[in-house]
Amino acid sequence: MRDVAIIGVGMIKWGEIWDKSLRQLFVDAAVEAIADCAVDRLDGLYVGSMSPGLFVGQEHLGSLLADYLGRKHLPAARVESACASGGLAVKTAFLDVASGHSDIVMAGGVEKMTDISGDGATYALATAADQEYEVFHGATFPGLYAMMARRHMHEYGTTREQLSHVSVKNHKHGSMNPDAQYPFEVTLDAVAKSTMVAEPLTLLDCSPITDGAAAVILADLETARRVCKGKPLVKITGIGHAGDSIALHQRESLTTLEAVRVSGERAFRMAGKKPEDIQVLEVHDCFTIAEIMVLEDLGFCPKGKGGTMAESGATHLGGKIPVNTSGGLKSKGHPVGATGVAQVIEITRQLRGQAGPRQVKGARVGMTQNMGGSGGSSIVHIMEVA
Amino acid sequence: MRDVAIIGVGMIKWGEIWDKSLRQLFVDAAVEAIADCAVDRLDGLYVGSMSPGLFVGQEHLGSLLADYLGRKHLPAARVESACASGGLAVKTAFLDVASGHSDIVMAGGVEKMTDISGDGATYALATAADQEYEVFHGATFPGLYAMMARRHMHEYGTTREQLSHVSVKNHKHGSMNPDAQYPFEVTLDAVAKSTMVAEPLTLLDCSPITDGAAAVILADLETARRVCKGKPLVKITGIGHAGDSIALHQRESLTTLEAVRVSGERAFRMAGKKPEDIQVLEVHDCFTIAEIMVLEDLGFCPKGKGGTMAESGATHLGGKIPVNTSGGLKSKGHPVGATGVAQVIEITRQLRGQAGPRQVKGARVGMTQNMGGSGGSSIVHIMEVA
Repeated sequence: MRDVAIIGVGMIKWGEIWDKSLRQLFVDAAVEAIADCAVDRLDGLYVGSMSPGLFVGQEHLGSLLADYLGRKHLPAARVESACASGGLAVKTAFLDVASGHSDIVMAGGVEKMTDISGDGATYALATAADQEYEVFHGATFPGLYAMMARRHMHEYGTTREQLSHVSVKNHKHGSMNPDAQYPFEVTLDAVAKSTMVAEPLTLLDCSPITDGAAAVILADLETARRVCKGKPLVKITGIGHAGDSIALHQRESLTTLEAVRVSGERAFRMAGKKPEDIQVLEVHDCFTIAEIMVLEDLGFCPKGKGGTMAESGATHLGGKIPVNTSGGLKSKGHPVGATGVAQVIEITRQLRGQAGPRQVKGARVGMTQNMGGSGGSSIVHIMEVA
Repeated sequence: MRDVAIIGVGMIKWGEIWDKSLRQLFVDAAVEAIADCAVDRLDGLYVGSMSPGLFVGQEHLGSLLADYLGRKHLPAARVESACASGGLAVKTAFLDVASGHSDIVMAGGVEKMTDISGDGATYALATAADQEYEVFHGATFPGLYAMMARRHMHEYGTTREQLSHVSVKNHKHGSMNPDAQYPFEVTLDAVAKSTMVAEPLTLLDCSPITDGAAAVILADLETARRVCKGKPLVKITGIGHAGDSIALHQRESLTTLEAVRVSGERAFRMAGKKPEDIQVLEVHDCFTIAEIMVLEDLGFCPKGKGGTMAESGATHLGGKIPVNTSGGLKSKGHPVGATGVAQVIEITRQLRGQAGPRQVKGARVGMTQNMGGSGGSSIVHIMEVA
């Protein structure tokens, strides 16, 4: 396998974007990524998008977006693993370059979630769960994660306040991110007292519905060195991808995300790293309980101690292991297919020293964890300064 | 890049399958593929499926199907390029193995199209076209291909009878395929006089709505030789993938499928082959006019002569270049995401000498062409006896 580096990153401010179509969102981010590395050549495009068919009635996104980007004959594909579709796009682009089939490949992600009416978004998102055993019977994503949260509280004594700490921290980080959908701070009290969505999860425990896009450009190391002359180079050194039973009732435990554990182990093994080596980390905080469980299952704290870790301040900017310096899904927003790509962008900026007020000083090794559904899939990337 | 071979193939009889769910269709085909090569190890899974979200309310297919196959932690992903999703799954699995990241990878395809009610299938399929510029205004796939057919008749004198010849030939071939949905023969007269769908295309010019699945297993050549001891080995030696403007009005010509032309050129270049070297060919005959145009754009006949070629008998079993010996989409059926995988299965069986009454004698080089939408994407594979 050839070594693979990230040579360009681009994203747009996320939010409820009424004046742009899905294709425009994507192209705006893609053009930023192209401008970031000033390459005029692409050999391929992988786009992560969870459910454009349900959200905007459009499949076949690969070709559509390549064409709108002005490259109609580009080999372009959509990839999907529910909310981990963005991480999957990065992984697939990595394999394309690593194989030698392509030299310069874009991995993008996009979701236009606010055009759908009524409870359409809740239904579209629920298709990441098991339709026949969960969704048909009324399950929604807040409900599935609420069951995990309730069980985590029961088994490990995780508290309402510990959940709130995750939201407070991520909104604090997001307040420093100009691309974030909700760049404001919240208080512990505000989180606990906000509208109940699915007990114990309140509105401020949940990531929002978002329109957004993000794009990165990968290249083999030789091309990357030529293109990025003099600029800091970031390599992807570890990839871990694992699945799990999508339906919660089929899992042995409600409080362990096996896909996260296995994907983490695979990425650490490939990169030759351990949790202690990671200096900055983006994880999939679709709900506050998810961040707590992911930190446990990746090995950043013992099982059951994620809540304690959240309230300790260790995961804050300036703490032992800053988590979700971008604001995470909670504050930055969660346009499903774009999220995994944006995580890779945040770590790239951190390792390049371009994260501004959110900069983790001297960070040279970072990691992303992107989750599909309620833990049915997980994709982890480890990235290092080359 | 490492050399990649096909070590196992599996499919099921396609049709209206009311007693099986999407996951059961897939697993039945996957188990056949595993049995075909007797491997007990998979390193990854790529599933092509166009729109399970719209057809059955289920995204996140990769993990769902890996789990139902008994391999819940497998890195599994869905890939989508509309009707070329199956070909895309094979291409992506190829890259995974070629890169050295994985040794044994399954590429599958599945679509469950008959569960959706009313005109749902027509809408779901139309999402492969441009929603904002075509579908919203009432375009459907038969309508789009009908415009291409009408223009082809106008420019090149292609006749109603020439269209019928494609259907008659593919049904003749399909009558020898036990997995085909409609394994019966039809006459020139029956095609011309069947129900009009979109003038000039009649019901028997159109591929059907189908439930079905197919799976192949790829491995690096070293592993393949060990696993397939003594059995004929088939290598993938050329891959071509190209896109085009999805919307017809944005193309320079209605009668040239640029994605097909470019993907063909790329595959021929990679394999070091020319059309004359191909001895058996599966192409994407979603409508009879598509087979005619594809043969032209891949270079098997001059532009405008596809109709003449169809009536000449050259594309029949026993002719100069047998096309769609499986029965094609027309007779075998077209469960969208599975089609590209089934094409690769047919060519594998031909090159192994396992095609029974459909066998093209002595075939050592074959090719598949899988189309997305109305030509918005095309994926070509060239395969050879190793």
